[in-house]
Amino acid sequence: MVQVLNPEEMFSALEAELQRTIKSIRDQDSESLEEMLTYHMGWEGEAFGTEAGGKRLRPYFVLLTSAACGGDWKRALPAAASVELLHNFSLIHDDIQDQSSLRRGRPTVWKKWGIAQAINAGDTMFTLAQFSLLDLHKYFASDVVIQALRILQKASIQLTKGQYLDISYENVDELSLDAYWPMVSGKTAALLAACTQIGALTALVDETIQGKYHRFGYLLGLAFQVRDDFLGIWGDAALTGKSNESDLLSRKKSLPVLFALEKNAEFAKYWRTGTFSSKDIPILIENLESEGAYQYTTRKVEELTLEALGILEEVQPQGSAGIALTELAKKLLKRQG
Amino acid sequence: MVQVLNPEEMFSALEAELQRTIKSIRDQDSESLEEMLTYHMGWEGEAFGTEAGGKRLRPYFVLLTSAACGGDWKRALPAAASVELLHNFSLIHDDIQDQSSLRRGRPTVWKKWGIAQAINAGDTMFTLAQFSLLDLHKYFASDVVIQALRILQKASIQLTKGQYLDISYENVDELSLDAYWPMVSGKTAALLAACTQIGALTALVDETIQGKYHRFGYLLGLAFQVRDDFLGIWGDAALTGKSNESDLLSRKKSLPVLFALEKNAEFAKYWRTGTFSSKDIPILIENLESEGAYQYTTRKVEELTLEALGILEEVQPQGSAGIALTELAKKLLKRQG
Repeated sequence: MVQVLNPEEMFSALEAELQRTIKSIRDQDSESLEEMLTYHMGWEGEAFGTEAGGKRLRPYFVLLTSAACGGDWKRALPAAASVELLHNFSLIHDDIQDQSSLRRGRPTVWKKWGIAQAINAGDTMFTLAQFSLLDLHKYFASDVVIQALRILQKASIQLTKGQYLDISYENVDELSLDAYWPMVSGKTAALLAACTQIGALTALVDETIQGKYHRFGYLLGLAFQVRDDFLGIWGDAALTGKSNESDLLSRKKSLPVLFALEKNAEFAKYWRTGTFSSKDIPILIENLESEGAYQYTTRKVEELTLEALGILEEVQPQGSAGIALTELAKKLLKRQG
Repeated sequence: MVQVLNPEEMFSALEAELQRTIKSIRDQDSESLEEMLTYHMGWEGEAFGTEAGGKRLRPYFVLLTSAACGGDWKRALPAAASVELLHNFSLIHDDIQDQSSLRRGRPTVWKKWGIAQAINAGDTMFTLAQFSLLDLHKYFASDVVIQALRILQKASIQLTKGQYLDISYENVDELSLDAYWPMVSGKTAALLAACTQIGALTALVDETIQGKYHRFGYLLGLAFQVRDDFLGIWGDAALTGKSNESDLLSRKKSLPVLFALEKNAEFAKYWRTGTFSSKDIPILIENLESEGAYQYTTRKVEELTLEALGILEEVQPQGSAGIALTELAKKLLKRQG
């Protein structure tokens, strides 16, 4: 069955599914707990709205993949909600771990309710992610639900391993380029791979096709993260929503930096001099560029995206959802924010 | 099939199952993450050993219930490991939330590895709890696994709600006695109820019997927590492992305190005078006793335990596991530490 794609219908059905899931914890004793979750999701509190909630990119991949594999995306909604809840659990905890005060221009959960409650709000969101996935049982046999759970839980373990590496790297002065990939595989690619695999699973395609969709999501996840690192240095602050000095000022071990450190030339020497202020940034960027980091990073995004698109072509995604999936992958390659 | 009970065999099979689950995350990049988990479980690091790991009470209830319902407890091992991992996830996060430096006489995970890594270690433990439960699929049909997941996830949500209340109560000067029960229902009783229910499920008894075992675990969980509150004031520090002044010094809203606050007599007046030092403790305890808090708390433990035992009798637990289950419930009523 090839459906005509209506992204607006998808997004509003997704929001309804997310809200239904979070509302399931409601009782008279835990109103503020629910408030922490609805605030974080962007539905309530100061400056609420679509901007505050983020792009819902991961669930969109679930729904598009389901439809592109000939499935009924409405039956994939519990899985779509699940991956978005899992992503947001990780954001709530990430903000505590990074001591970030702002997310999408709004105070983070821990800034508003304190660290203790924010840890617990993240834990609740994590539980709801698992809970939501069980709702697939409305539409699918138990075996399919268990397969979906297995995919999500593998991704969750990868996510926590990636997070572990990311936190560990903060205390290391220099890293090899090789150390980058296991970290972003876990932090970003594993969940996107789970999204596209679960999407394919909900269309009940065979395991080989599911595996290809997993690989497609995985490569796209890597490309997404590398593009993020690129924008962190060469992006337009007006479009990315954050200063393009902050990654260098905070000495973030992003891909361009690790590439240039391995060159062990001017950039590496400058990097080793210690902490930076704004006046160092143009020099650092010039060194990165002259040593090939700009080109390397750009090429990596292209290579990864092209490899992902090649795999997508093999599995012949169907109809308007198939076209949308291809377009979305290309758009991520060129995104400015 | 009625099995002869060998608790030592149960405990060593459980440890093996727990270790197998945690080892599943092992790879060359995340050795220290695994170390945080094995340290917390009491298997490695300073002062490791049985003491360091805790009593493994929750999984023991899973295994005993399974056997007492005529099941093969070995098939319940993945569920037993799962509840213990879930419990330990909550302890790792709880220690951060309470800023506790010591657990079972050893530095807590956050004290050793910092808050950021400890949050993530807890998240990993939580994921492994979910993962472990899926291993029931080795022995049971998909439907049974999904039922077990649903039970565990409901308990997880109750757990986070209880934790939310507990953290909220810290900032409230006075609470009604009514506020106590939803908090301990979530924090303690919900998981013990899930343990006995899942144990019964793995013996494939019908839902009515499962429901009774759920209720049995729930009541016992409440009794366990009330006994804990009792020991926090009238316990022997040498047996409980913590000073019996600390609950009053930290102004913990335990059941005896909430009971006496509702009396609104001498204890309540003294309580409202502000922070305490060691010299206030005998006066506070004397007031608690003269206003009936000792008796009330003791009676509550007895009532709850008797109600639990009454339900257990109804379902006629079998064989030596059945006897052990009854004995364990009675032992918890009288425990000194």
